[in-house]
Amino acid sequence: MTSSKYSEKYQIQLFEGNANGEISLAMMMNIMLAISEHQLDQLGISQQQLVANYHVGWVITQYHIEVKRAPKVGETIVASTQATGYNRFFCYRDFWIHDQAGNELVSVKSTFVMMDIQTRKIIPVIKEIVAKFDLEPSKQIVRFPRIPHFDDTKTITSQDYRVRYFDIDSNGHVNNTRYFDWMQDVLGFDFLQKHSLKTADVRYEREVHYGDVVQSEVQKAAENITLHRIMNNGEIAAEAQFTWQ
Amino acid sequence: MTSSKYSEKYQIQLFEGNANGEISLAMMMNIMLAISEHQLDQLGISQQQLVANYHVGWVITQYHIEVKRAPKVGETIVASTQATGYNRFFCYRDFWIHDQAGNELVSVKSTFVMMDIQTRKIIPVIKEIVAKFDLEPSKQIVRFPRIPHFDDTKTITSQDYRVRYFDIDSNGHVNNTRYFDWMQDVLGFDFLQKHSLKTADVRYEREVHYGDVVQSEVQKAAENITLHRIMNNGEIAAEAQFTWQ
Repeated sequence: MTSSKYSEKYQIQLFEGNANGEISLAMMMNIMLAISEHQLDQLGISQQQLVANYHVGWVITQYHIEVKRAPKVGETIVASTQATGYNRFFCYRDFWIHDQAGNELVSVKSTFVMMDIQTRKIIPVIKEIVAKFDLEPSKQIVRFPRIPHFDDTKTITSQDYRVRYFDIDSNGHVNNTRYFDWMQDVLGFDFLQKHSLKTADVRYEREVHYGDVVQSEVQKAAENITLHRIMNNGEIAAEAQFTWQ
Repeated sequence: MTSSKYSEKYQIQLFEGNANGEISLAMMMNIMLAISEHQLDQLGISQQQLVANYHVGWVITQYHIEVKRAPKVGETIVASTQATGYNRFFCYRDFWIHDQAGNELVSVKSTFVMMDIQTRKIIPVIKEIVAKFDLEPSKQIVRFPRIPHFDDTKTITSQDYRVRYFDIDSNGHVNNTRYFDWMQDVLGFDFLQKHSLKTADVRYEREVHYGDVVQSEVQKAAENITLHRIMNNGEIAAEAQFTWQ
């Protein structure tokens, strides 16, 4: 049994559009995560309630994102989400964006873990919380596509990004959708104007904090495949593979 | 006679909140400008229609903003706008944000000019366009509070901001609300956590473009008054005075 699917309409605002009149990957995830938070709020396990009652929070560790078409400025979309499974450490959640005619525009598979907000350490998922999803524990760990490592013999392009005040969200953390902007910006205007993102696989390794200066590194792995790393003080904060059309 | 006031409800999303759980000055203006664009669209003079039919666009030159309380994440607000007057070169427009109980949270006075999108030069306002506002031409030029110049004997703090791909809006320009983020970010986390913005006077002087590296300069003019300049290639792109509580 899976928990019920939750959906909301959302109208894309003028100020949410990029130079192509579409929303960015970061904004797609922002919208889907906000919808998901509304569902959790109704179940009594919003971020605030998790902090207040359990001293824990969710941390995203992995996304697999498929984009058939990016939503456009002015368009009304339907964003949906559904918890699909869990085991000792991992919770799995899917997201979708459909257009008003019911066509799927974006689909996402994700993995979350639970973190003790005092120790900042990953903990086993709290049964009382996942019980709200009305799901049986999964026997298996869901496998995501492998993100290839950089090829040390090929060119790496890098750009510095200082974490700014407005990169911090209302939980006091760097909003992890910001990583997408850093990963894409380093590709430059011409590339981003001429290419549409088709898939994104992202793995989050470490938190970054206000004032950190991260390096967004990119390597072209093949025609229409880019590999990305967010480096912070010499350590990998996130890795990704994007495919383009 | 003034043109009619136009209002829309707007719910503040989770991802729109800053570290204080409120929306930034940039987001307040984004929301009010989006609502205003909806009104212009209904009058047949949206940005796209102005470009297509007249080869012109609006350029903001000045804001006077008063913030009684910043809207919060999850809150539903009412954003309103009204064209209030025009003369040979200037159009005046007011904006407001109210809470659901009708309390005024934010009020804005603004001046716009009309630009030929080919020559990038300011032109006299086109009568056929302002006729839609159902306003008599104003005899007077509206005066805004003077923004003091920097005091060369006092400390100036400066930080570089490279204009990024996602700073460009769907009109292909650097969204001028981005300037607010640059002006505020340079003040640093501690200041922004401990102070609430009360008023902002902003004057725009020159466009900035993708790839430009601007300097956001700030000087403390008095307890709770900061002066701001956005410098681009040695020229002033924008000046502002903020007051804080």
